[in-house]
Amino acid sequence: MPNWRFVVEYDGTDFAGWQRQAGAARTVQGTLEAAVEQVTGVATAVHGAGRTDAGVHAEGQVAHARIVTRLDPATLLRALDAVLPRDVAVRALAVAPDAFHARRDAISKHYAYRLWTGAVRSPLRERRSLWVRAPHDVAAMRKAAALLVGEHDFASFQAAGAPKRSTVRRLDRLAIDGAWGGEVAVHAEANGFLRHMVRNLVGTLLEVGRGRRAPESMPALLAARDRGAAGPTAAPRGLTLVSVRYADFSADSAGLGPTPG
Amino acid sequence: MPNWRFVVEYDGTDFAGWQRQAGAARTVQGTLEAAVEQVTGVATAVHGAGRTDAGVHAEGQVAHARIVTRLDPATLLRALDAVLPRDVAVRALAVAPDAFHARRDAISKHYAYRLWTGAVRSPLRERRSLWVRAPHDVAAMRKAAALLVGEHDFASFQAAGAPKRSTVRRLDRLAIDGAWGGEVAVHAEANGFLRHMVRNLVGTLLEVGRGRRAPESMPALLAARDRGAAGPTAAPRGLTLVSVRYADFSADSAGLGPTPG
Repeated sequence: MPNWRFVVEYDGTDFAGWQRQAGAARTVQGTLEAAVEQVTGVATAVHGAGRTDAGVHAEGQVAHARIVTRLDPATLLRALDAVLPRDVAVRALAVAPDAFHARRDAISKHYAYRLWTGAVRSPLRERRSLWVRAPHDVAAMRKAAALLVGEHDFASFQAAGAPKRSTVRRLDRLAIDGAWGGEVAVHAEANGFLRHMVRNLVGTLLEVGRGRRAPESMPALLAARDRGAAGPTAAPRGLTLVSVRYADFSADSAGLGPTPG
Repeated sequence: MPNWRFVVEYDGTDFAGWQRQAGAARTVQGTLEAAVEQVTGVATAVHGAGRTDAGVHAEGQVAHARIVTRLDPATLLRALDAVLPRDVAVRALAVAPDAFHARRDAISKHYAYRLWTGAVRSPLRERRSLWVRAPHDVAAMRKAAALLVGEHDFASFQAAGAPKRSTVRRLDRLAIDGAWGGEVAVHAEANGFLRHMVRNLVGTLLEVGRGRRAPESMPALLAARDRGAAGPTAAPRGLTLVSVRYADFSADSAGLGPTPG
C-alpha cells in the first residue's frame, strides 16, 4: 500500500493534543484518521513525527499513513480539506518512499515558543503566546541559552514520570528573537526532544531573566539530571512545532513558509 | 464626573459585534460595561468610536465612559483586566477632556482587511483572515483602489437598508500590501465609513482581481449610488479596526503598536 507523507498545520487550542486517546477526547491524530476514513472508506492509522501536547500548535507537523486511493495528490488534499474542521489542515501531501516513518526518520525538529511581553494583555495574541509582563534580562537569558546548546543529558528538563531509555539529546539551537516589551520568540532545534523539554527550557530561561537563577548555573543544572532542579513548565499555548527535517525533505524545502501571529 | 478614554483590543470571533443588544447576545460594549460596573459598583455606559460587526476584530478601538473611582489609571486598568474575559482587553486608559466623545470627535479611522492567499487553508490564520486561493491580478486591484481614493459618494458600498443622511466620505488611503500567494492586507483609512463599507470595497476589489470587473469601471460604480452595482460583502473575520485618530490622540501616538497574525 502506498505510503503517504503529510505536512499538517493546526491550532492546538481546542485539541487534547496530537495523540489519539480512548474516549471522546478531540485529538489531531483522531481527527485526521477520521478524515482519511471518510474520504477513502478505510480505517487508517496516521503516524505523526511529534506528539504535541494539548494546546500546542503546529505549522509543519509531519505524518505518514498507508492509503489506497485513485485520487491524485491535489484531489486527495482537497477531499481531506472538505471534511477536516477549521482548526486543522493538510498543507501538502505526496507519496513517500515505502520505508518512510515520520517519527523514526526525523533528523531534527524546530519548535518556537512565543512570548508577548507588552505591558498589557493582548487578546489577539492570546491563543498563540504566553503573556509575560515583568521586565526580564534578555542578555542573561541568551547567555544561559548558549550554555544549553550542544549534546547533553537533558534529564533535568524531562517531564517527571516520563522515562526514556536515553535522555541525551543534541540541542542545535536555542535562540531568543525579539526585544522585551514586544514579541519575543524562543527557537529550539534538536535531533529530538524529551517530553515537555521545550516548555521546561522556556520556564527555566524565564527564571534566569527574572534574576532567580544565574546563567552560569546551567551546566550544574544539566549535571543534576533532576527535574526538580529546573524551572516550571511554561504553558502550552505559546508552543508551536514549526517544522520537522528529514534527510530528503522538510516543510521548508517543500516551499511552505512559516506562519505568523 | 471624569470622562475616561479607553483603547480596547478584542478578538471579535466570539462576539456578536461591538454594540450592546437586547437579550443574551455577547457584545464587546456589554462586556466592557459589565466589567466597569463590577469594578466601580456603578452601571456605566461605554461609548465606542466604531460599531464593529460580529466577527470583526479591533487592535485600537477607542471608547469613552464617565467613571467615578478612587483608583489611579494603572490600578483601574488592572482591575478591569482582572474581570474581563480573554478575548477583550483595555490597552490604555486616561482621563480625557470633559467634552471628549469617542465617535463624534474621531477625525479618521484605519481598518485592515487580511487575506490569506496561499494554495491551502491555514488554520493558524483562520480567525483573522479570509482565505482566497484563486490567482488574482493585484495590479488591477491596485489600479481600482486608486480610483476609489478621495472624497466621493460611497452609497454603492453602503449596506442595503442602512441609510445615512450623507453617504459622502473622504477615503484617504486604500492600499494593498503584500504579494499574492502569501499574506495580503487591504488598508483603508477614511474620515468615516458607511456600514459594511470596507467589506464591500474588499469584495469589489476581489472581483476586479478575478477579472470580473475592470478597474476603469470604478468611477461609474461610484456614480451609480446603488448597492447592487458593487461586489459582495467580504466575510467579517478578515477585518480589524486598527486605530482611530483624534485631534490630540491616537492609539499609535499612545505608543501602542499594531498587532500581528
